[in-house]
Amino acid sequence: MIKITFPDGTTKDYKKGITSLEIAEQINPGLAKEVYVATVNGEIYDLSRPLYNDSTLKLHKWDDEEARHAFWHSSAHLMAEALESLYPGIKFGIGPAIENGFYYDVDPADDTVITEADLPIIENKMKELASLNQIFTRKEVTKKEAFDLFTKKGDEYKTELINELEDGTITLYSSGNFIDLCRGPHLPSTGSVKAIKLTSIAGAYWRGDEKRKMLTRIYGITFPRQKMLDEYLVILEEAKRRDHRKIGKELELFSFSPKVGMGLPLWLPKGADIRQNLIDFLTRLLKKHGYKIVATPHIGNVNLYKLSGHYEKYGSSSFQPMSTPQEGEQFMLKPMNCPHHCEIYNVTPHSYKELPVRLAEFGTVYRYEQSGELHGLTRVRSFTQDDAHHFCRPDQLREEFKKIIDLILYIFKILNLNDFTAQISLRDPDNKEKYIGTDENWDKAEQDIISAAGEKNLITTVVRGEAAFYGPKLDFMVKDAIGRKWQLGTIQVDYNLPERFDLSYTGSDNQRHRPVMIHRAVFGSLERFIAVLIENTAGKFPLWLAPEKAVIIPVSDKFNDYALKILQILNNSDICTLIDDRSEKLGKKIRDNELKRIPYLLIVGEKEVENNTVSIRKQGDGDKGNMTIDEFVSFIKEEINKELSL
Amino acid sequence: MIKITFPDGTTKDYKKGITSLEIAEQINPGLAKEVYVATVNGEIYDLSRPLYNDSTLKLHKWDDEEARHAFWHSSAHLMAEALESLYPGIKFGIGPAIENGFYYDVDPADDTVITEADLPIIENKMKELASLNQIFTRKEVTKKEAFDLFTKKGDEYKTELINELEDGTITLYSSGNFIDLCRGPHLPSTGSVKAIKLTSIAGAYWRGDEKRKMLTRIYGITFPRQKMLDEYLVILEEAKRRDHRKIGKELELFSFSPKVGMGLPLWLPKGADIRQNLIDFLTRLLKKHGYKIVATPHIGNVNLYKLSGHYEKYGSSSFQPMSTPQEGEQFMLKPMNCPHHCEIYNVTPHSYKELPVRLAEFGTVYRYEQSGELHGLTRVRSFTQDDAHHFCRPDQLREEFKKIIDLILYIFKILNLNDFTAQISLRDPDNKEKYIGTDENWDKAEQDIISAAGEKNLITTVVRGEAAFYGPKLDFMVKDAIGRKWQLGTIQVDYNLPERFDLSYTGSDNQRHRPVMIHRAVFGSLERFIAVLIENTAGKFPLWLAPEKAVIIPVSDKFNDYALKILQILNNSDICTLIDDRSEKLGKKIRDNELKRIPYLLIVGEKEVENNTVSIRKQGDGDKGNMTIDEFVSFIKEEINKELSL
Repeated sequence: MIKITFPDGTTKDYKKGITSLEIAEQINPGLAKEVYVATVNGEIYDLSRPLYNDSTLKLHKWDDEEARHAFWHSSAHLMAEALESLYPGIKFGIGPAIENGFYYDVDPADDTVITEADLPIIENKMKELASLNQIFTRKEVTKKEAFDLFTKKGDEYKTELINELEDGTITLYSSGNFIDLCRGPHLPSTGSVKAIKLTSIAGAYWRGDEKRKMLTRIYGITFPRQKMLDEYLVILEEAKRRDHRKIGKELELFSFSPKVGMGLPLWLPKGADIRQNLIDFLTRLLKKHGYKIVATPHIGNVNLYKLSGHYEKYGSSSFQPMSTPQEGEQFMLKPMNCPHHCEIYNVTPHSYKELPVRLAEFGTVYRYEQSGELHGLTRVRSFTQDDAHHFCRPDQLREEFKKIIDLILYIFKILNLNDFTAQISLRDPDNKEKYIGTDENWDKAEQDIISAAGEKNLITTVVRGEAAFYGPKLDFMVKDAIGRKWQLGTIQVDYNLPERFDLSYTGSDNQRHRPVMIHRAVFGSLERFIAVLIENTAGKFPLWLAPEKAVIIPVSDKFNDYALKILQILNNSDICTLIDDRSEKLGKKIRDNELKRIPYLLIVGEKEVENNTVSIRKQGDGDKGNMTIDEFVSFIKEEINKELSL
Repeated sequence: MIKITFPDGTTKDYKKGITSLEIAEQINPGLAKEVYVATVNGEIYDLSRPLYNDSTLKLHKWDDEEARHAFWHSSAHLMAEALESLYPGIKFGIGPAIENGFYYDVDPADDTVITEADLPIIENKMKELASLNQIFTRKEVTKKEAFDLFTKKGDEYKTELINELEDGTITLYSSGNFIDLCRGPHLPSTGSVKAIKLTSIAGAYWRGDEKRKMLTRIYGITFPRQKMLDEYLVILEEAKRRDHRKIGKELELFSFSPKVGMGLPLWLPKGADIRQNLIDFLTRLLKKHGYKIVATPHIGNVNLYKLSGHYEKYGSSSFQPMSTPQEGEQFMLKPMNCPHHCEIYNVTPHSYKELPVRLAEFGTVYRYEQSGELHGLTRVRSFTQDDAHHFCRPDQLREEFKKIIDLILYIFKILNLNDFTAQISLRDPDNKEKYIGTDENWDKAEQDIISAAGEKNLITTVVRGEAAFYGPKLDFMVKDAIGRKWQLGTIQVDYNLPERFDLSYTGSDNQRHRPVMIHRAVFGSLERFIAVLIENTAGKFPLWLAPEKAVIIPVSDKFNDYALKILQILNNSDICTLIDDRSEKLGKKIRDNELKRIPYLLIVGEKEVENNTVSIRKQGDGDKGNMTIDEFVSFIKEEINKELSL
């Protein structure tokens, strides 16, 4: 007998050689249908792999990444089998699971070209093979056996890969007629793949090397139920529609220039206004919450980052230091604002009475990313942090955490981000030597975070071993309108920088003490957050954030003068307004301006001129009646106030 | 006879060998007493130097820099003579005129040390020598003669200098017993030096080389009248009192950190607020004037600056390019925003109807300066430009210039900068090949600037040959409260960048046309402007700019609660307010807070609590009576509105 320990700590004895699948069936036959793979003693196993020793066991259902990964990896094999049957002589590169689905890089024989039009045929073949419910079989082989097998098959890509593997680590998986070099794990059989969609086809150089052959990459996704695929495709379509790169271009919010450099956003007027509206809103809020705004340069002497420790950790992967034409100095773009803020803290002496000092900056930082990793505004080389550092006494830590939680929740509410989770990351109690700071400080800080979250009724998961080396932290994950999760909001305790920068305050005992530092950001990157915001709102920003609040549409040229008069009044009242005085039909002008997502359309014609009013249409919400200009000014200002107060 | 042409174009014949001084005496004996030096055929001459050929002649009075330069240079000789008589064996380095006064680097014999205490004695000796009205005599000598003379005298610094001169170019000047290697020019005699002040003493390495001997540098200033010196000393004292570095430290506005790097300002909270208030004010104004605000990264690919031409011109004297860890890219800190704005212009196509496009940015730029050149906020390595670029049709140039002049004058008025001059810089009509752009464009642009300035009743001086190679310009010089001049405000036409970036718009003829670009800045550098503002206001900022509008002072601890209540109301009304709840005497609290230059002091005691009011003291203006909190909020907002509207 062997002893199996489950995640809740309970144990049970089973006969030696039992599989995870059999254990699941014994627990509950329904459960067995829902699990796809298992973690055995920390390693991912096929459900069908026998267990011979006492083990910890976690069975993974669809919601676990491990399950989806195995499901999609098995689907890649299924697609390969279909391709081999449809395109005899086809050669295979690699075929991994990815975040959503899988792909396989293939090289059809002779002059065969696979196109989008072939995808339904391949899908059908996959469905046919899946319905056979073929079993995945794992086999450990020697390097020579593997090499001989794929040489015989003529699969030169596989033999190249095998050459680089170490003997004794090689496994093959077969299902039906298909056999692949593969580390696994896989589903027990292909039958659980019920819904299949091959999504796209692209070229991809073998091993990413542009000097080697261009293979055909076929992307797909599969699900255990058709309904799940249908829902996924709807979300995919919706995500495409909301893609911030697409909307950013349509609404002229931002752009990139290869001449300026990849990943360096150019904020066009409307995007710059949104960004500034966000900064202004946060600035006002921060000032009310006792923050002081500072401004620091975008570079620092290399020695600053040697002192902070950033140079040692990130120096070689950052934009490299630049030298000066004389005097032999070396500067770096700042990758974060904390060293600068430590230096500001050090400008003046501090007494225990004036702590906490809360320094905030909308600081643009620069971090090198490989060009292939760049993606719209979500992965850039320059971004603006909504950064702040709290310098406080250890006894103020819990109160500060509570205040920051309040602030973050307030901002989430204003922005309608109501679906979020929070995680507290503590140190690994079995590896205390990995962390800087005393036991006493850590215990207190961890307890403070947990209590602060508790007092604020925050539902958190607590994860041991995920703290940074310099302190414990609390992170927020926000779900957007189509269910995607984004990490927004982080509060991190830091015992490291106060030491390195020799920060101090004079205590009530007249002695020198070390303050604790908290790093906190609500969004982390304004650029990334604006991308989230664009996708979450599909470009229909709340009124206070919208770069243009209204557009005036004269029903004909006759009313252009009146329209211009209103335009001036509104703009002088700081309500950014446009005019559409093109000689187009009213219907077309309304449609065109609805597309621009401008919150209010103000139609003016005979009646409006007579009564000195405007006729109001709200974006996506139709006719809202007439108002005088003064009424409209008050109305807009009140609407914005409503949006910004809870 | 020779023909002398005067600056107004009139000519007169004089006998050969006449001196400029004799010409001045013939014109008017009073004039002769007011002139110090002459420009003869473009070269600066001693007044006593005979003229042998037909020449143009300009006589320089005190207001000309040339006159002051000769006056102070002659004073340096006078000081040297005094030193030689007081400290026998003293050796001389160099003794030039500077912007305000002169200095001489000297090396007293043996162990003699000259200190501050000796300066009055040297001054008295100078006065004594000046009263002798000794004549300055110019003598052309061979290199050997000069070398022998100073070798005999034992003046090793002079012989070192002579070694580096070319034979045939060497002149000596003597006055009284003192003879010096000198290019001149000088006053006719020492008698016009009527007022003398030696201001300070410092060490200076011979030839600025720290490996060579440290000489003694004695600074001084002289004037033709005692009243002028008295006025100068008052201004000097006032300038010291107003020094923005001193006030910036006292008021905690900004700081520098050697760890971050020299010349890189760290804006402390109050300074950052002033800077932001200025940016917010300008932003609002710019939007009303049809500008679009953009935001661009602080770096650009080196190729961007090769395209713009900046790399070739400034590359070697800038912060050097930085490389990326992979992909072999090279980036530079941006020294200006124009290339980025050109790229923004190029994001979308433009029709003649939507021009002018006016792009503005508060863009922080980076320019390398040698550490010895850095000075507070006026000479830094990173500064924020209030930069804008107008892209317009050639036919819009004059209107755009008029609009920009309006904007600049409006801003000057708001900031009480009412004393200014303006200069129009045109190209040199005799060297047209030095400039880019067609004759037609230049003629039109120059005429447009001149007309625009005329229509706006701007009094300008027009200087030919001072245009940039890329276009003509209009600059503003502003005089501050103690009479110092600052260059603020520039409007420059540019025909170069539109070519280099291939900018275009579609004309009414449906053809592709090249727009004209205007660069314009009101302040040029916000950092430098804030320095000017601090010195102009001595730190007493107008209410709208002040980082803190009011401080509440409870007359005793009993009223702290009431004070805190008011504090919250005011801060929630976005009126940044402090509280001084120290247990100090009221008088001391008032004095301390006056020093902080906070515009309003709100005293609260028994009576104020009873009537729910505050007692108001205006900074430097005493008691202003009582108001309710609501009244005070409205009052402050109204005051700010008044300041910001004319």
